Amino acid sequence: MTQEELFKKLIAHSKEYGFIFPSSEIYDGLSAVYDYGQLGVELKNNIKRYWWDAMTKLHDNIVGIDAAIFMHPKTWEASGHVGAFNDPLIDNKDSKKRYRADVLIEDWIAKQDEKIEKEVAKAAKRFGEAFDREQFVTTNARVLEIKAKRDAAHEKMTEVLNANDLAGVKALIEELGIVCPISGTKNWTDVRQFNLMFSTQMGSTADGASIVYLRPETAQGIFVNFLNVQKTGRMKIPFGIAQIGKAFRNEIVARQFIFRMREFEQMEMQFFVKPGTEMQWFEHWRQFRMSWHRALGFGDDRYRFHDHEKLAHYANAATDVEYEFPFGFKEVEGIHSRTDFDLSQHAKFSGKKIQYFDTESGESYTPYVVETSIGVDRMFLQVFSAAYTEEKLENGEERVVMRFPAALAPVKAAVLPLVKKDGLPEVARKIVNDLKFDHYVQYDEKDSIGKRYRRQDAIGTPLCITVDHQSLEDGTVTIRHRDSMQQERVKIAELPGIVHDMVSLRPLFAKLVR
Amino acid sequence: MTQEELFKKLIAHSKEYGFIFPSSEIYDGLSAVYDYGQLGVELKNNIKRYWWDAMTKLHDNIVGIDAAIFMHPKTWEASGHVGAFNDPLIDNKDSKKRYRADVLIEDWIAKQDEKIEKEVAKAAKRFGEAFDREQFVTTNARVLEIKAKRDAAHEKMTEVLNANDLAGVKALIEELGIVCPISGTKNWTDVRQFNLMFSTQMGSTADGASIVYLRPETAQGIFVNFLNVQKTGRMKIPFGIAQIGKAFRNEIVARQFIFRMREFEQMEMQFFVKPGTEMQWFEHWRQFRMSWHRALGFGDDRYRFHDHEKLAHYANAATDVEYEFPFGFKEVEGIHSRTDFDLSQHAKFSGKKIQYFDTESGESYTPYVVETSIGVDRMFLQVFSAAYTEEKLENGEERVVMRFPAALAPVKAAVLPLVKKDGLPEVARKIVNDLKFDHYVQYDEKDSIGKRYRRQDAIGTPLCITVDHQSLEDGTVTIRHRDSMQQERVKIAELPGIVHDMVSLRPLFAKLVR
Repeated sequence: MTQEELFKKLIAHSKEYGFIFPSSEIYDGLSAVYDYGQLGVELKNNIKRYWWDAMTKLHDNIVGIDAAIFMHPKTWEASGHVGAFNDPLIDNKDSKKRYRADVLIEDWIAKQDEKIEKEVAKAAKRFGEAFDREQFVTTNARVLEIKAKRDAAHEKMTEVLNANDLAGVKALIEELGIVCPISGTKNWTDVRQFNLMFSTQMGSTADGASIVYLRPETAQGIFVNFLNVQKTGRMKIPFGIAQIGKAFRNEIVARQFIFRMREFEQMEMQFFVKPGTEMQWFEHWRQFRMSWHRALGFGDDRYRFHDHEKLAHYANAATDVEYEFPFGFKEVEGIHSRTDFDLSQHAKFSGKKIQYFDTESGESYTPYVVETSIGVDRMFLQVFSAAYTEEKLENGEERVVMRFPAALAPVKAAVLPLVKKDGLPEVARKIVNDLKFDHYVQYDEKDSIGKRYRRQDAIGTPLCITVDHQSLEDGTVTIRHRDSMQQERVKIAELPGIVHDMVSLRPLFAKLVR
Repeated sequence: MTQEELFKKLIAHSKEYGFIFPSSEIYDGLSAVYDYGQLGVELKNNIKRYWWDAMTKLHDNIVGIDAAIFMHPKTWEASGHVGAFNDPLIDNKDSKKRYRADVLIEDWIAKQDEKIEKEVAKAAKRFGEAFDREQFVTTNARVLEIKAKRDAAHEKMTEVLNANDLAGVKALIEELGIVCPISGTKNWTDVRQFNLMFSTQMGSTADGASIVYLRPETAQGIFVNFLNVQKTGRMKIPFGIAQIGKAFRNEIVARQFIFRMREFEQMEMQFFVKPGTEMQWFEHWRQFRMSWHRALGFGDDRYRFHDHEKLAHYANAATDVEYEFPFGFKEVEGIHSRTDFDLSQHAKFSGKKIQYFDTESGESYTPYVVETSIGVDRMFLQVFSAAYTEEKLENGEERVVMRFPAALAPVKAAVLPLVKKDGLPEVARKIVNDLKFDHYVQYDEKDSIGKRYRRQDAIGTPLCITVDHQSLEDGTVTIRHRDSMQQERVKIAELPGIVHDMVSLRPLFAKLVR
């Protein structure tokens, strides 16, 4: 199965079982926006709870907030988003389609690699077993020519983008002879910057309503509340503020399912420290966050760090936690040492003094910040793709099983009467009624027990509880474990304890706190 | 204490203790938008969990979803929001201020009542003890004249608003001689309709990006997903879909703190039933939702139903659950029988068949819908104002105590070493570390124990756990209950069980499931 096939299967599975639907699907969808279905919302909420509790409950010195999506527009001047949160766009005048100029060039570069592969394939066919790929691609004149063009284009693109030279970007597109994939023409407009923030009008005055933005990140909601939280919560540095919430970016190229969406959800924590101690905290959070990911048990080797060499203007250190998705290693979380950039900017733009007074040393200073920032939707996709497993069983059948960690599984247990008579449904209902106060459990009496197991496997329910005739006699049931498919008999009275222990976040937390 | 004073105290208390901050306060705030602080977010999350679990976990036949804020724009044509979700606005040309025309008239009417009260006060002063208010207001010529004008204005306003006669609204404003409170002039523009939806542009095509709206209600996200959820979740009618999420309305008159905000959060459940059974389900949900409110224990008599006489075009029955706020009885929740209006409209506008096939009867039909709709922020304000209590203690001191139900309290327990030495802090830390995996607990060693109790009372922590010298000897601690202030000694080993039982939602749920 190729990565692309696997990815398609994931998307199909997520829809078939009510995890993710295209938004407004009856109206043929809304580009790069998705809805979470009945099981998706449970998985997503469980992921959020794992993060929230790990950050706020386990740490005495981290508290949460929930700031509004709408913020004062000056916030985004101070943060730099009004001035510099742009993509370079270009329109084709014939097709009227708009493109990201840098993506057009990147696609052209990728096409050169395809061309080389075609030359390779042709030559391989011609030379048969004697073909030496390495030698061919380093000596063949045609290949060398393509490579030279490709590398020159890449170098030029980096140069003009870094210089923010929009005319240069357009010149390069023309020089490379890039055509619109729709119209096939080279009839391009100039390249211009396009701000990625969604804006809307908040109306209350007659002479033009004021423009407000949908926040492109949740972090600024934390920075503008720094003083309020520090003072009313009597927080002492070092301390953190955590937040989960929606953010919006008007991405022109939104790709890869829920990996890059226009409306998405973030889980961000800003940790305020004394200047000079930030690298030690950066290292601390780097390790803690990696442990948080690895505690889910999907395999330590599927995660890696990617340290940034080129840093954003506000950062003095940055790293990504990357996970091996079906489409390669990709960022799921960023850890950034943001210096005092944000607090200083807000002090400047608001005219307020935003400092911390250290009662022990008697000094006032602007704290430095170490940020951990993770996308809920990406994390969802990470968990979903890591959990997806196709298995061949001993009896020759196949099953799809979602190997969610029990604490994240949408449905915790399914209660299944073996047959739909003889009082078994009543016993099963009683078990459901006893468990449902604390857990999301399903009752299912339709189809054979084997089919019902398959359905629960496909949605990742860790435990199936089967009520049979023996249950009536001795008050026991069969429990079947999702991954091992092992079964055992237990007393009905023991079920609440078994389910509670199985789905608890405690074992995960125990790996984080040492 | 007047209601207004109480309300001001609530707002001050909510800010002082980190429940609610004005949004972007360092930039002098953003009108009618608020942020939830470190304790507010916990209270809000607990309220949401109480609702979510009561709706989805306790009901086998209700599942959740989480649809995006952005939806296909046709959604809002089908729902009627593009055409009819308007306020009548008028601008004063001198002050450039914009007003809701109906509110200007309502304010003028309210002023007539004030005028009457002034006449009453004057006469009362003149006549002394002999003054008969009832006789005065029913016979005094000046009062009768004011009343007649007031009632005529009210009647006219109802008439022109119902007829959507905007010129008539303006004529009435002019006839009543209403002046702008800012400029004092009568220099008004025409009245025009102003849509309450926030709109933004989702950019991807060159010839004008497409307009999308920020959803003004979460309900439509459920309706457009009806088929997806019903089919992938194998749901049988009657069944419900629940959702919690943000919604946005560009209210011109946003008042009363978090009671009416431009960005707010809803908890809505749409229950799909067979046509003809909707009144029975309407009654069911009316009762269930009232029980949910009353289970919080704030006093059954502070809630009442307000059945609607005038119904929205899509409804055949509607009622509000009202709670007695400091500013009077106000709606906290609505229960509406929405008929098949929404599903039929989406079928019409999407061209898709949106029906349910009943396997038992063999019929297909468009389900009817009973909706329960509650604002998270209003519910927060309800809980906050119901919990706020000022008490005079036996020793003459005063305390402010937030009597939150333990399951909703932001901080579940505070662990307090009696003194900051002799190993007491270490024992207290150990207790915190044992409880924090499951609960939000605070450690506090600063100031006298009395002061620390007051602080925990003010944020509504149900349990204070005090570690003293006896703890070192026999492994016991004092627990102090917030409301009764009674203390008792318990073994440290018993604490997890005590806290768990105290904060559980189970006792509340037990009142709902009979």
